Amino acid sequence: MDLASLIGILSGISLIIGAIFLGGDFNSFINVPGLMIVIGGTIATTLLTFQFKDVTAAFKAAYFVFSKGKEDPNRIIKTMIQLCHISRRQGILELSKIKTKTKFLKKACGLIADGSDEDMIRAALRTEIESLKMRHFIVQDVFRKMGTYAPSFGMLGTLIGLVQMLSRLQEPSSIGPAMATALLTTFYGSLLSTLFFLPIAGKLKSRTIMEVIELEIMLEGAISVLENNNPLLVYEKLSSFIPERLRKPMSEMEGK
Amino acid sequence: MDLASLIGILSGISLIIGAIFLGGDFNSFINVPGLMIVIGGTIATTLLTFQFKDVTAAFKAAYFVFSKGKEDPNRIIKTMIQLCHISRRQGILELSKIKTKTKFLKKACGLIADGSDEDMIRAALRTEIESLKMRHFIVQDVFRKMGTYAPSFGMLGTLIGLVQMLSRLQEPSSIGPAMATALLTTFYGSLLSTLFFLPIAGKLKSRTIMEVIELEIMLEGAISVLENNNPLLVYEKLSSFIPERLRKPMSEMEGK
Amino acid sequence: MDLASLIGILSGISLIIGAIFLGGDFNSFINVPGLMIVIGGTIATTLLTFQFKDVTAAFKAAYFVFSKGKEDPNRIIKTMIQLCHISRRQGILELSKIKTKTKFLKKACGLIADGSDEDMIRAALRTEIESLKMRHFIVQDVFRKMGTYAPSFGMLGTLIGLVQMLSRLQEPSSIGPAMATALLTTFYGSLLSTLFFLPIAGKLKSRTIMEVIELEIMLEGAISVLENNNPLLVYEKLSSFIPERLRKPMSEMEGK
Amino acid sequence: MDLASLIGILSGISLIIGAIFLGGDFNSFINVPGLMIVIGGTIATTLLTFQFKDVTAAFKAAYFVFSKGKEDPNRIIKTMIQLCHISRRQGILELSKIKTKTKFLKKACGLIADGSDEDMIRAALRTEIESLKMRHFIVQDVFRKMGTYAPSFGMLGTLIGLVQMLSRLQEPSSIGPAMATALLTTFYGSLLSTLFFLPIAGKLKSRTIMEVIELEIMLEGAISVLENNNPLLVYEKLSSFIPERLRKPMSEMEGK
Amino acid sequence: MDLASLIGILSGISLIIGAIFLGGDFNSFINVPGLMIVIGGTIATTLLTFQFKDVTAAFKAAYFVFSKGKEDPNRIIKTMIQLCHISRRQGILELSKIKTKTKFLKKACGLIADGSDEDMIRAALRTEIESLKMRHFIVQDVFRKMGTYAPSFGMLGTLIGLVQMLSRLQEPSSIGPAMATALLTTFYGSLLSTLFFLPIAGKLKSRTIMEVIELEIMLEGAISVLENNNPLLVYEKLSSFIPERLRKPMSEMEGK
Repeated sequence: MDLASLIGILSGISLIIGAIFLGGDFNSFINVPGLMIVIGGTIATTLLTFQFKDVTAAFKAAYFVFSKGKEDPNRIIKTMIQLCHISRRQGILELSKIKTKTKFLKKACGLIADGSDEDMIRAALRTEIESLKMRHFIVQDVFRKMGTYAPSFGMLGTLIGLVQMLSRLQEPSSIGPAMATALLTTFYGSLLSTLFFLPIAGKLKSRTIMEVIELEIMLEGAISVLENNNPLLVYEKLSSFIPERLRKPMSEMEGK
Repeated sequence: MDLASLIGILSGISLIIGAIFLGGDFNSFINVPGLMIVIGGTIATTLLTFQFKDVTAAFKAAYFVFSKGKEDPNRIIKTMIQLCHISRRQGILELSKIKTKTKFLKKACGLIADGSDEDMIRAALRTEIESLKMRHFIVQDVFRKMGTYAPSFGMLGTLIGLVQMLSRLQEPSSIGPAMATALLTTFYGSLLSTLFFLPIAGKLKSRTIMEVIELEIMLEGAISVLENNNPLLVYEKLSSFIPERLRKPMSEMEGK
Repeated sequence: MDLASLIGILSGISLIIGAIFLGGDFNSFINVPGLMIVIGGTIATTLLTFQFKDVTAAFKAAYFVFSKGKEDPNRIIKTMIQLCHISRRQGILELSKIKTKTKFLKKACGLIADGSDEDMIRAALRTEIESLKMRHFIVQDVFRKMGTYAPSFGMLGTLIGLVQMLSRLQEPSSIGPAMATALLTTFYGSLLSTLFFLPIAGKLKSRTIMEVIELEIMLEGAISVLENNNPLLVYEKLSSFIPERLRKPMSEMEGK
Repeated sequence: MDLASLIGILSGISLIIGAIFLGGDFNSFINVPGLMIVIGGTIATTLLTFQFKDVTAAFKAAYFVFSKGKEDPNRIIKTMIQLCHISRRQGILELSKIKTKTKFLKKACGLIADGSDEDMIRAALRTEIESLKMRHFIVQDVFRKMGTYAPSFGMLGTLIGLVQMLSRLQEPSSIGPAMATALLTTFYGSLLSTLFFLPIAGKLKSRTIMEVIELEIMLEGAISVLENNNPLLVYEKLSSFIPERLRKPMSEMEGK
Repeated sequence: MDLASLIGILSGISLIIGAIFLGGDFNSFINVPGLMIVIGGTIATTLLTFQFKDVTAAFKAAYFVFSKGKEDPNRIIKTMIQLCHISRRQGILELSKIKTKTKFLKKACGLIADGSDEDMIRAALRTEIESLKMRHFIVQDVFRKMGTYAPSFGMLGTLIGLVQMLSRLQEPSSIGPAMATALLTTFYGSLLSTLFFLPIAGKLKSRTIMEVIELEIMLEGAISVLENNNPLLVYEKLSSFIPERLRKPMSEMEGK
């Protein structure tokens, strides 16, 4: 699992729980109907806002983001340079036999081997990238919207509690605890939004940015292979996508 | 009807009603003048903001979004590949005889059969897509604006209630119930916005995204038919619009 | 006058006034210094924010939006098809004699009759459209900014009232009415913003969208006339701008 | 000085001061430490946010915006038509001798006289316009950020006052005045933001829009001069930038 | 160190501390658990939102922004003109021997010396600039998100304090100090956001703008060198990136 995320989420939860325990009674922070309004309401409106498949895709994506390791873009450049060597030495037909788990690269190789022209390849791969960006945007949007719905339901819960408290004000001693309970849903809503939904949406966004860069490298690399560029030029072109201090020199790219 | 939406809206309403009943008296949450200010005010300003025909279009669209099933983009790709076969075997004139409920596809076929060139076809169909996007944007905007007007009128109602309560403070015992009533409009406004208007605007947006993808597939497919591309290439091009795990293989596209 | 707007504004005002009367005393909602701060302050900052001519243009535009009827885009398509017939039968020079109130169309005809090339015509007309969009954007912006300044001055008025009330707390009985008065400016600011400024900005925006579509139809139509397209093709091209269910068939376009 | 701005700022200040005097004691609205937190804090964070030279440029720009008169775009069109005549009658070399205070126009004439081609001229002048837009954007941003920092420091001041008041609650009679003082910083922050910073940012923005239009007219005019267009065509092209009702006829453009 | 930033941050802190001391007791503003919730929570959610390397990059960038001096764009233009002279006098191969700390310029020279064509150079350098902009955007985003997380955790802390206070209201004398403590986290959150995170994000943004301009000058300069433009033309082209009043004349560009 992604270590920073693990540390982040555990320390965030500990801080909140610690602050509650420091002030004394933990029970006064648990209110089951309040939790139901905030969590249930957020899920209900999320189902109403998105397609069902988008919501499940979002939760799957959230799981993968925290578990899956990320690839080094230098490795992708290395792969593209190897493809370039194969194509120059053995011909472009050889590219159709490449074995790779990345379907995008597989498709790129297939299109080159089929003899498609640059415009056609660029259009098909660009469509792939744009479709991926849009699907990922929707997935991020699920969590971003949950991050706005949760505080809204928190406020609705607090309003319900306040109206109930105010409409029977005969027992003055009960005002304090009643207001405390009413405020709890606001607390739940803000907590869920700040500690879970918004950071997850952010993490998904930064993952998308990285994934798109990888695909862009493959796209430009595929075009270079098609144009039969020499490997050094391919390296110069593709390494522009990587920040200087992370770039590996050309010499490391040639080895197996 | 769209099951997720049904579940979403029913569970959302149940949660709120349940929370109110749990706290006791349901009557203290009903205030007819307050409901009139929030609902009436929202409708009034919506009529003022948009053209009348946009408002009715928005309500129609909201109805359809929850009732109409959605098409599988794989079927559209299949149709485009069939059109490609027809055009290659029987000539482009045959395309004018195609029977389809989709007017966009009908228009595309008509333009090809008339012998229009690629630029002309692309321009006409692109205009169709852009017009549809803009009309759908306005329809979403109706609900998005209602989602901001409703809480505003909720706050206006609460301000009216507060001013009335404060300007005659002689009966201290009435403060509680009066404030409860004043807060009710804020509750109504937030509830309408969070549980109905904003989710409906969101659902309309995700429907638009799906519909535009379908039209983009038809547009690119029509251009492929015009360019007399072979069916495999058409498949490669159009399948880029669909996420990998939902893509059907070429073999399934050829059957009847 | 635009009926929906009239209904909207009258019912909005009635609802608010009704709610005030229901609660009893209307006088407690009138506070002349408060009204002056909110209205005067909003006008003052608006003058400070925009050029004087933009502010007057905005008020003129607001008047026209509610009074002027809107044109049917089908009629514009019909006109463009007629121009197409004239140009094909009588020569492009005949276009310079066209009588029309629309200066944009007049300019388009003049440029064609002068023998300008497509790039020149497209550039000049595109500049016209972009200039119009920008001027309209500023006009909408005047009302949008008024919609944010009004609540700000409402809050400033309330703050002034609160500070005055709090700095002499010796008379506890006066707290209620004093707070009521302080809250009034917040009420005025929100009311003006929600019921007038923001809806007017919205209406101006939807009018601009419609007007731009009309100009786009004229621009594309003029290019078609220049390219000597046949009327059916012109119809196919231009009808893409209109939603399917509002489109009139080609047969209705040919008559006088 | 720009009259509308003068009226705007004077009436805005008068309204606020009037409202304060109406409620009685002016002294209760003066709090030197509060003013220092809001004004000092806003300046401090502005220095932290921007380059020092951007802050000074912003204040200079604010001064000029309220003092400098604005040019009539019709005069610029007239100038461009004169340049067109000069170039056609006396040759493009004559353009290098043009005397003008506008450095942009000077540069355009110089580039034409040097025999640069259209792409080169367009690129150099476009870069000038984009650089100017970006510098002006930063200048507006200085005031826009001040407009958000001022209320933030207002709130910080109020929080400090509230914490101080609440932590020694033994003297109940002092609560009112203490809260009044605490609220003052919120008042200062909102006032500065609403009455000065945001309107100034708005005015700078509308000035930029006007200035960019002037430069666009010069750019398109220079290209027309280079292409040796006849003056009438130049007029048709450039007048598109001006709203119809402000356009002067061609006849007025030819005179001295 | 950047003097304006130093003055800004020191005066900002002094103003806040001064205001606290003026009101008396400094201790009532220190609350270690509150500080832990706000600072700890902000760091935790930031780690959850971003990749770990982005967070460290952000803190490094923040350090450099306040320490590193900035380059004068006039010097870069001078360098480009010198490269132009070298290339014209000694041939483009000489460019590969240029010694410079700027890797971007090094890469540009290398590509020219390798005989790459304009499209290739433009694409590679444009990718470098876009990658840099995106990385810098993420770095700014880290501070911008911290600027929204800090007040959220401030509010969460205050809610925890309020719920704890309200659920045991038996000791009325403790209400004041308890509320003061509860408000402290809101104060911490706003202070961190307003005085540190948001201004740092702003400063990083203005640094990025300046850095991108420098790279744009190098890119356009490199293309000019490739096209063998004469030095005066290069000067005219590149000086468009600098505001008029900061531009140095051509004469100063030629010297050593």
